[in-house]
Amino acid sequence: MKRIKLIAAYDGTAYHGWQFQPNAPTIEGELNRSLKEILHEEIQVIGGSRTDAGVHALCNVAVFDTNSRIPSEKFPYALNRRLPDDIKIQSAEEVPAGFHPRHCASRKTYEYRILNVPFPIPTKRLYSYFTYVPLDVEQMAHGAEFLIGEHDFNSFCAAGAVVESTVRRIYELKVEKAGSEITIRVQGNGFLYNMVRIIAGTLIEVGRGNLKPEQVKEILDAKDRRLAGATAPACGLTLVKYEFEDKIK
Amino acid sequence: MKRIKLIAAYDGTAYHGWQFQPNAPTIEGELNRSLKEILHEEIQVIGGSRTDAGVHALCNVAVFDTNSRIPSEKFPYALNRRLPDDIKIQSAEEVPAGFHPRHCASRKTYEYRILNVPFPIPTKRLYSYFTYVPLDVEQMAHGAEFLIGEHDFNSFCAAGAVVESTVRRIYELKVEKAGSEITIRVQGNGFLYNMVRIIAGTLIEVGRGNLKPEQVKEILDAKDRRLAGATAPACGLTLVKYEFEDKIK
Repeated sequence: MKRIKLIAAYDGTAYHGWQFQPNAPTIEGELNRSLKEILHEEIQVIGGSRTDAGVHALCNVAVFDTNSRIPSEKFPYALNRRLPDDIKIQSAEEVPAGFHPRHCASRKTYEYRILNVPFPIPTKRLYSYFTYVPLDVEQMAHGAEFLIGEHDFNSFCAAGAVVESTVRRIYELKVEKAGSEITIRVQGNGFLYNMVRIIAGTLIEVGRGNLKPEQVKEILDAKDRRLAGATAPACGLTLVKYEFEDKIK
Repeated sequence: MKRIKLIAAYDGTAYHGWQFQPNAPTIEGELNRSLKEILHEEIQVIGGSRTDAGVHALCNVAVFDTNSRIPSEKFPYALNRRLPDDIKIQSAEEVPAGFHPRHCASRKTYEYRILNVPFPIPTKRLYSYFTYVPLDVEQMAHGAEFLIGEHDFNSFCAAGAVVESTVRRIYELKVEKAGSEITIRVQGNGFLYNMVRIIAGTLIEVGRGNLKPEQVKEILDAKDRRLAGATAPACGLTLVKYEFEDKIK
């Protein structure tokens, strides 16, 4: 028996998120189906980041066990022939039997993209959130600084989510503008349910002038979801980097 | 009667190109339909660049005449409410009655994007051409140099196209790589049918090593479509800039 780690890139537009659902298209469901076609056995991959409906990824992780003698480097070719155009495997490699993407220490990087121009640009619509209200990027970047480090992110977690701890560490949180597009880039050791989208929604309020940058710290300290901004739309969010601390790539 | 010039951005994926067809979705058809809804009169816009099926644009031009008293700056709002998500007006302004986008001297800039990595990346699939064969960007850039200037581009015009002259001027033609994406950026005073896509297809052959850069000059001089590369797929092509020489923006 060997354990294989896949790196999957996908356009989340057409999917009800990563996690398997019996009656809706999901990334996990498509991977399980394609693996079954190749291996002729029931496969249930273990996902790294269980991304929400509509969220995109360049590099999500899926792990599975098999007795097959197919060399691991052949899996991207075999899977990509069976997967739809909006899900494609980028690499596959054998990993130790004990490797579990959600139990290993890791750093994930997400980008939240905002198109900030007077009118929507159709070729950007699937991968960014459009707002015509001019956003002050410097104020957003200032507000973002208060979230860097280890904090209790309870204010930035979807209400009702059940988790052991709402403490997470953010290593990097940058807000940058290039042309008409603002990118919020955040790297952390883990993210609560909707956390990046709530951070984005809160920084958008700062950019609009509805919140002062310093209020981001007050919201963080209050540990109250109701004080933070709205959950920004899923289409703007992409998982862009996923690294494991313990040398397993 | 006043003449209004619209700037239209669109994702061409779902359309049979710019030009009106009675039984297929086209950009022109959508504009005519939306203008009719607003103005309650039959409108047939005059298009600037008659882009092919699947080609995208940030800034194509459409001109129409109306007796309406609606101020020109209101048209983007009124039209965007009626247009689908994949076509959006960026601006509208009144122009002189004699202004015709295809009869005025202009400079158009197209970008052809190539995704050059081992496996397709789904979030790039609609706006770039994927090839896993490693392309030599320096060789492509060298080959591109032979096309700059005024030439008879007969070798780079779709066979069977009927035009008065196949002479065009290319002001700029750059091939650059950023990350996994190669961009061919070309600015000219006009382009023959499929010209940019045939240039892209020919430079891809140079990048693959199937043609030497110097052979691009031989192909140009031969004035024979059969010697140039294949017409590269439409999805990689976007009209990114459209300027008029005679001070009309």
